[in-house]
Amino acid sequence: MAIKEQPQNAGHVLADGTKMVPRAVLYDINVQRSSHAEEARTLAARQITGTLCSVSKRHDAYPYGSFVTYAIHNGKPIFLISGLAEHTKNLRKNPKASLLISDSDGENPLAAARVTLLGECRKLADSEVAGARETYLKQHPSAADYVDFRDFSFYGLNVASIRYIGGFGKMSWFEEEDWISAEADPLGPHAEDIITHMNEDHADAMVLYCKTMSDATAVESATMTAIDRYGFEMHATLPDGTYPIRLAFEKEATTPDEARVELVRMVKKARKMLSSQGRENAED
Amino acid sequence: MAIKEQPQNAGHVLADGTKMVPRAVLYDINVQRSSHAEEARTLAARQITGTLCSVSKRHDAYPYGSFVTYAIHNGKPIFLISGLAEHTKNLRKNPKASLLISDSDGENPLAAARVTLLGECRKLADSEVAGARETYLKQHPSAADYVDFRDFSFYGLNVASIRYIGGFGKMSWFEEEDWISAEADPLGPHAEDIITHMNEDHADAMVLYCKTMSDATAVESATMTAIDRYGFEMHATLPDGTYPIRLAFEKEATTPDEARVELVRMVKKARKMLSSQGRENAED
Repeated sequence: MAIKEQPQNAGHVLADGTKMVPRAVLYDINVQRSSHAEEARTLAARQITGTLCSVSKRHDAYPYGSFVTYAIHNGKPIFLISGLAEHTKNLRKNPKASLLISDSDGENPLAAARVTLLGECRKLADSEVAGARETYLKQHPSAADYVDFRDFSFYGLNVASIRYIGGFGKMSWFEEEDWISAEADPLGPHAEDIITHMNEDHADAMVLYCKTMSDATAVESATMTAIDRYGFEMHATLPDGTYPIRLAFEKEATTPDEARVELVRMVKKARKMLSSQGRENAED
Repeated sequence: MAIKEQPQNAGHVLADGTKMVPRAVLYDINVQRSSHAEEARTLAARQITGTLCSVSKRHDAYPYGSFVTYAIHNGKPIFLISGLAEHTKNLRKNPKASLLISDSDGENPLAAARVTLLGECRKLADSEVAGARETYLKQHPSAADYVDFRDFSFYGLNVASIRYIGGFGKMSWFEEEDWISAEADPLGPHAEDIITHMNEDHADAMVLYCKTMSDATAVESATMTAIDRYGFEMHATLPDGTYPIRLAFEKEATTPDEARVELVRMVKKARKMLSSQGRENAED
């Protein structure tokens, strides 16, 4: 799935009629990246709590938001909920539901990724419970305390439509097939460690990447902000501000080791590019 | 409003029919505490993001959850949202909405407090915008970047019904009057600092409080977990486990200084009680 990147604020019009001009993009906008479905699956795999929206039984079909813990089982969000809880009463009367999952950290909350999964949420069939239970308890070990309470049951949301918002101006709707066929990023669970390591120990490498593989040649410093199987993202600080940069790996990296190999390969390539530039300049 | 405390897990029945026995409560259960409405207002004042639930226009009246930033203006959650956004399209067609606000931290997510505010969410009247704008920008200074975009408007949720869940077994429904008349706890913005200070520098005081003013006389250590205008809460570790303890102030504390006065007064009282117990024992 090809994703078009929309620069922040593009398309908005100020009250006085001024149109916002998109900022320059300093990298190849067609760089390989995760699809929205892959990003959404990765987000859903990373978080463990969300908001379940159901149709209120008590309050005249008002949409009712409740805090839930969940796990993803075969692409389906599953919940261990009590028959005494409002959302369970709501779902029994009307299975229409959605689950909002959002990334909680970050300075600007609206820049955070979030996904809304819409579909019918129903009690799991007896045949599905054993598998769901195992997945759920692995994600939520403390639920062992109440998984055997008679009033608790496993429910599953049959994801039919998906709204993904990856941040400012990066959003789409997609349907069940894309959700089910997409895979959570295998680097997801390791991303934070890799990013910390790169920013603490390899700040110079990031500057090299930007200088040689993007249009941010005037880069002063750069920090890694994201990494996935297809590549990684940085914030590059230039004299006139900070710009996002995304670069792709030559080969998909599905483990931290493979990511390290790609990052090292790119440093070597960047050094070579710089030294051949140096030679060209010397020959001028 | 009198709040009954239900010990965790009470009322639940295991699959084999065993009834959960409530744990002993080691403090006066009638101790003064915030009402659920006060706790809910405090939570809403403390957070700045939540989930807005609206009725999907695109998807056949499915409840649709979206991530929003909000501020509380005269008891009303207000939002600065774009006409291009799904939730805005939904609200224009059907104003029925709810806002879920939850406390994000804590090891056990289901022990976190959360509140669902139900009501109609509509575009603010022109006369309300100036006040709302001021409140909103104070809470979200970065919104100054887009508050003047032509497609953004202020919406307000007219809170009609409230579902508050303060943790395990502590929950209630209440209505508009209670929400509007309740006040966010004035100690709320200072609670974290006070708690950190007490746990870092006055662990001995907490043990004294538990020993003399609760039934946790066998306390080994205690940490403060919450504080409000009416009193404070601790986790007391005894040989057989950790118990919650709540103690009330003699006088309501609406500033950190007043809280300090109360906490010091209670230490002095506890020391007196201990030394008179010591004398009694010596006279035996």
